[in-house]
Amino acid sequence: MSAPKKVVLAYSGGLDTSIILKWLQTEYNCEVVTFTADLGQGEELEPARKKAELLGIKPENIFIEDVREEFVRDFVFPMFRANALYEGLYLLGTSIARPLISKRLVEIAAETGADAVAHGATGKGNDQVRFELAAYALNPDIKVIAPWREWDLSSRTKLIEFAEQHQIPIATDKRGEAPFSVDANLLHTSSEGKVLEDPGVEAPDYVYQRTVHPEDAPDEPEMVEIGFEAGDAVSINGEAMSPATILTKLNELGGKHGCGRLDLVEGRFVGMKSRGIYETPGGTLLLEAHRGIESITLDRGAAHLKDELMPKYAELIYNGFWYSPEREMLQALIDESQKHVTGTVRLKLYKGSARTVARWSDHSLYSEAHVTFEEDAGAYDQTDAAGFIQLNALRLKLLAARDKRLKS
Amino acid sequence: MSAPKKVVLAYSGGLDTSIILKWLQTEYNCEVVTFTADLGQGEELEPARKKAELLGIKPENIFIEDVREEFVRDFVFPMFRANALYEGLYLLGTSIARPLISKRLVEIAAETGADAVAHGATGKGNDQVRFELAAYALNPDIKVIAPWREWDLSSRTKLIEFAEQHQIPIATDKRGEAPFSVDANLLHTSSEGKVLEDPGVEAPDYVYQRTVHPEDAPDEPEMVEIGFEAGDAVSINGEAMSPATILTKLNELGGKHGCGRLDLVEGRFVGMKSRGIYETPGGTLLLEAHRGIESITLDRGAAHLKDELMPKYAELIYNGFWYSPEREMLQALIDESQKHVTGTVRLKLYKGSARTVARWSDHSLYSEAHVTFEEDAGAYDQTDAAGFIQLNALRLKLLAARDKRLKS
Amino acid sequence: MSAPKKVVLAYSGGLDTSIILKWLQTEYNCEVVTFTADLGQGEELEPARKKAELLGIKPENIFIEDVREEFVRDFVFPMFRANALYEGLYLLGTSIARPLISKRLVEIAAETGADAVAHGATGKGNDQVRFELAAYALNPDIKVIAPWREWDLSSRTKLIEFAEQHQIPIATDKRGEAPFSVDANLLHTSSEGKVLEDPGVEAPDYVYQRTVHPEDAPDEPEMVEIGFEAGDAVSINGEAMSPATILTKLNELGGKHGCGRLDLVEGRFVGMKSRGIYETPGGTLLLEAHRGIESITLDRGAAHLKDELMPKYAELIYNGFWYSPEREMLQALIDESQKHVTGTVRLKLYKGSARTVARWSDHSLYSEAHVTFEEDAGAYDQTDAAGFIQLNALRLKLLAARDKRLKS
Amino acid sequence: MSAPKKVVLAYSGGLDTSIILKWLQTEYNCEVVTFTADLGQGEELEPARKKAELLGIKPENIFIEDVREEFVRDFVFPMFRANALYEGLYLLGTSIARPLISKRLVEIAAETGADAVAHGATGKGNDQVRFELAAYALNPDIKVIAPWREWDLSSRTKLIEFAEQHQIPIATDKRGEAPFSVDANLLHTSSEGKVLEDPGVEAPDYVYQRTVHPEDAPDEPEMVEIGFEAGDAVSINGEAMSPATILTKLNELGGKHGCGRLDLVEGRFVGMKSRGIYETPGGTLLLEAHRGIESITLDRGAAHLKDELMPKYAELIYNGFWYSPEREMLQALIDESQKHVTGTVRLKLYKGSARTVARWSDHSLYSEAHVTFEEDAGAYDQTDAAGFIQLNALRLKLLAARDKRLKS
Repeated sequence: MSAPKKVVLAYSGGLDTSIILKWLQTEYNCEVVTFTADLGQGEELEPARKKAELLGIKPENIFIEDVREEFVRDFVFPMFRANALYEGLYLLGTSIARPLISKRLVEIAAETGADAVAHGATGKGNDQVRFELAAYALNPDIKVIAPWREWDLSSRTKLIEFAEQHQIPIATDKRGEAPFSVDANLLHTSSEGKVLEDPGVEAPDYVYQRTVHPEDAPDEPEMVEIGFEAGDAVSINGEAMSPATILTKLNELGGKHGCGRLDLVEGRFVGMKSRGIYETPGGTLLLEAHRGIESITLDRGAAHLKDELMPKYAELIYNGFWYSPEREMLQALIDESQKHVTGTVRLKLYKGSARTVARWSDHSLYSEAHVTFEEDAGAYDQTDAAGFIQLNALRLKLLAARDKRLKS
Repeated sequence: MSAPKKVVLAYSGGLDTSIILKWLQTEYNCEVVTFTADLGQGEELEPARKKAELLGIKPENIFIEDVREEFVRDFVFPMFRANALYEGLYLLGTSIARPLISKRLVEIAAETGADAVAHGATGKGNDQVRFELAAYALNPDIKVIAPWREWDLSSRTKLIEFAEQHQIPIATDKRGEAPFSVDANLLHTSSEGKVLEDPGVEAPDYVYQRTVHPEDAPDEPEMVEIGFEAGDAVSINGEAMSPATILTKLNELGGKHGCGRLDLVEGRFVGMKSRGIYETPGGTLLLEAHRGIESITLDRGAAHLKDELMPKYAELIYNGFWYSPEREMLQALIDESQKHVTGTVRLKLYKGSARTVARWSDHSLYSEAHVTFEEDAGAYDQTDAAGFIQLNALRLKLLAARDKRLKS
Repeated sequence: MSAPKKVVLAYSGGLDTSIILKWLQTEYNCEVVTFTADLGQGEELEPARKKAELLGIKPENIFIEDVREEFVRDFVFPMFRANALYEGLYLLGTSIARPLISKRLVEIAAETGADAVAHGATGKGNDQVRFELAAYALNPDIKVIAPWREWDLSSRTKLIEFAEQHQIPIATDKRGEAPFSVDANLLHTSSEGKVLEDPGVEAPDYVYQRTVHPEDAPDEPEMVEIGFEAGDAVSINGEAMSPATILTKLNELGGKHGCGRLDLVEGRFVGMKSRGIYETPGGTLLLEAHRGIESITLDRGAAHLKDELMPKYAELIYNGFWYSPEREMLQALIDESQKHVTGTVRLKLYKGSARTVARWSDHSLYSEAHVTFEEDAGAYDQTDAAGFIQLNALRLKLLAARDKRLKS
Repeated sequence: MSAPKKVVLAYSGGLDTSIILKWLQTEYNCEVVTFTADLGQGEELEPARKKAELLGIKPENIFIEDVREEFVRDFVFPMFRANALYEGLYLLGTSIARPLISKRLVEIAAETGADAVAHGATGKGNDQVRFELAAYALNPDIKVIAPWREWDLSSRTKLIEFAEQHQIPIATDKRGEAPFSVDANLLHTSSEGKVLEDPGVEAPDYVYQRTVHPEDAPDEPEMVEIGFEAGDAVSINGEAMSPATILTKLNELGGKHGCGRLDLVEGRFVGMKSRGIYETPGGTLLLEAHRGIESITLDRGAAHLKDELMPKYAELIYNGFWYSPEREMLQALIDESQKHVTGTVRLKLYKGSARTVARWSDHSLYSEAHVTFEEDAGAYDQTDAAGFIQLNALRLKLLAARDKRLKS
């Protein structure tokens, strides 16, 4: 790979990406463009602008954007249509944000004439893979720079030294090492590393940042009604809202009731297992409610097919293959199924749990006439079941007859 | 089908199966053998013996058995190795008991020279299918009688009349109709029908019978440690126990903390949707803990394959295909994966939720050396990730290059 | 089911459906509408009109239609996009025609105010299921009459008697029993039953009707080039043609060279195994060519996902679930994959085999630059493979290290 | 990776691996052990011994073994139980040999105290991945040396120079470049590269080495009967034979009749597409016959499950994951299905095609009584089909009723 001339950096404004910014300038002597996105991580973005300017970035090379609506509408919601869970439990909060960041990096590269993009993910994790696969899928000729895999700033001490050498301001609390590493966006907060590295030791309480402890949650349950149209949430308690507003509101509700905590050991794409603490308050409510509305509006054949394909779909997102033909094929299949996933679900939130307690829809396939224990007025002929069973049993009978024959 | 001469009836001792017993005698003029199983449903069995005798069953034709250990060891535990959930949520508590009952019915038929078996499931549900597919798979020549599909006792009034005509004792509280229908065994209690038939209306509190209301559960969380060997639970808090004892104990713990409630609309095999309230306190803990121990002992490739096949496996059990080649093939695959699923999981139980908070094992695949944020002493070479990403990206780049080429 | 008042009958003009026609009139005293479709079965349709008139059908109740283009365009081609093979070998020639016939029956019922449809499939086969599932999926209130399951004309003798009683003309050669049963359309000819019932006995030569014996095929191979656009065949040897014309032409070519014969024992949806002789000359060429063009234009991830889902897709069609949400979902997935399946394939036809020998496309993903044994000018960096392998191996190493540790 | 001290090299005795041998000695100054396996590639092995000795390998470090029986029994046959085809067409002839070679390399390393193994696969292909994943899975601490990824002998000229410098004998016909590259073993011969690199150009006739041109095959068809027990071939034309003998014999038969040629463009695991010419004469017969015997002995549910999982199983083998938990899990599933796959299949071989024409077995599930067009003596009750269809249709009717309701 030839040296990059102009690089678009995913820039948070924090110490690490500031060091990367400076390192790119010094290592490659290249022009740096910064991209700072509001994905709902809960931090002010304007300080990032100031910091970038301070580090010598030209104003026209500083991109700061609120992408929350796009994030929820085009990434989070399509994923939730699939009821996606990685390894049965993880709601993919980090995974789903990466493709959007890469997409903007590549687009800004095209706009600004940059030939490379850079990110601050390490060489051990999944995020490097997600950033880079997405970038290459969107522009096969782009260069991707991953400083953590290249430089020799392999310890906290060396990083701080580099920062001091290059006049990068260091917040007092960043001189020591954080007790764990955090990633956050509108969908979730994840924590990992350091004090969390032994999966046999419980995560300390202070790790949780976004949900109250279930023990501290209100003593009274709270009901919430989520409205859906064609598979996506469109309202809360009857009030229509934009995608990002809905997720924000669900985060508040879930967080208040201690919902959506997960302590997980997962298999990384790069091969080792890692332990993460995830908080996905709004997403947890959304998944429960989406399953709830599907339960009355989605046909059994459709639902089972979706369930069989979900693990593969989740794996693709986890592994960074959002922009791959197979993810898009699965999305086409999933979206096809959601046309009638419209209606309302009532959840009960209480001290860490969120349970569907009622659901209704004009699109419902539930037929009380068919299922009733009462007289069904001919909706269903019970004698049909005899033939149904006989023909389903036929191959089993033929198997059993063979066994009998061979034994005799 | 020619008329049966001797029938083994799955007999609970309750009013409905007593009516069936008498109906079989009168309708077919055949000898009846009764089989009453203790599956952990929490009822005394000896009254069933007295009732059977009263209805004229010969003592040698009355079979009463405690099958709880067999139920958990040979049915529940193998199923939990798969983390089986039907439609993402249902722990299959009713489905998994049916094959065992059918197996004993068929075996007792062979012992007693009976040519038929009979069950008390209706023509609208899944249980008829499960009973009958299992029976035919075990004996292709057995006759199966399903009185609910045959007789004209189509209303409660007619049933009571029939009972009175035939001197069948009727408990006072059975004269009126129950407000919903219940099935119970050591794994779960399910309730459905009547007051539960509108899925848009919350289930009344009195429906729940086996778990306390989360609001009434203890205000203090409780920790429990479940030990596993080769995929099966073998101890609680360090104390080794038999399978049925473990499930009994987990039921107590889960029930006390309000765990394992589910309000579900599901797709029946016979084609319509139905709504059920399930309480699976011990099973809910077991699933959570099993996923927890798998998370550190099961390889990613193995885990993902299991996850992809789980929905199909669960569907087979739900639909009554326990004794089918494909369920046995999937079981062989699942069991092959469980050799190292050995270790201990700590769960935290609190007001309706059961969460893994720690797990450890001599068989762990988790390698702190590989995952650590600290210096890893060469366990992992971060530059490997670059090649890994490049080759995973290659096909995506070729796709993107094609798009570029075709557009230009 | 109440008695039908007006029935649309799938009518071939042959003896069996003529008997059905008359039986419907006499049994139900209902008005009969006939629908005779040209699906490419190779028979004149006008005689069916005369016969229907003779049997008292009003001219406005006789529907005769050439549906060959619709058949190939909307049913055969979408199915071939999936490379569908039932049980690894069967090209689904009969299965794919049934939904189209049912669709027209239901539409004509709506046009003519009929409340029922009828078909001539027996109670042992798959076709009854296919006809009826399709009909119910398109009109949930339609009645379906399957005379073979209802009447008592259970032997050839009784059928002939009935025909004679009702002045139904009987062709001389129909008085005796055919040595086997045949179904034909533009995609295939199938033969089964009677002389073919023992799968251990070779099918006699005279069973084959549509393909020459490979031994009698030309001694010189013939090349044919099939052009594709977005997954569908659009030309032969450079000449653009309509869907049905293409399949007709491929049938000629394949039939001339003895291609597409299959002697198969398959598992029917109704539970037993049956043996069929299938001749699918054009379809065999089409499948081979479609795989050929996909091999250079379809991404590996897309292709493998398609391959994994193909058996389920084929099973759905075989079982009669063309008009089901899950088939439509799979179709959406498959169609999404076909956008770039455009290009040309050259097949070599010779004495029963059809093999791809060359393929080319502007949409090709094949990159000689990457794969070449020659100097590749930096297209591919071989050292990337080392990292790729290391990270793919990491979990296997961790497994092996565990085994070592536990053994020591 | 520290420098290897003693290396076991997969050594063919040819020029390329002789250069590798010498390069290992000079580059690493390490002791070299050679392993030369007879996998049925059709070459004498003793010349390899002489050549190794000439290159200074100590006699006790020269391992020459006939592993043909192990190859077929423990690798080829288990794979054929699955009917494995990569991308629908490729019989995996190269892929399946690599794990065996790696296994012996690792075992010989243990026996001889070597710390490394080496292979002659290039950095662009799949074989490097297969060799190395297998080696690491069997010994996590083994070093693997892949000279083609390390050295700078990047052109034919440089290789020849190196050989001359080090007194490695060069056969006259090896001075120039071969027009394509070949791999062979008892299962197949593959050819790729050079003259085959343009997939739009037909492969020249001289590429095919193991099968006669169909045009030159005998003008008379030949029948062959293959006997199976529990999924594996055990006899030909009634004569019991060992696994390798059977495959050898089938190769003769298939080769004589021009069977098993394949011209394929496939997706490599390392990301690009490549074109290969495969000749798998015996394997082609074996696959056809195995499907044939399964067709009467394997239950539909079992067969369909196998078919759905086959692509994944084939992909695992192609990608080099033979020694992975998921391949072993799938193998357990497949093997469980094969207990009754016992019986005989008759194939007709003729000018490039091999077709099943008859099959019979004591384990047959085919029931003429059930399928017959004749009177079936009550084996099957056609009225059962009505109930079977009604309940399969129920969910489709509910869907159609919803559509109707929403439109009105």
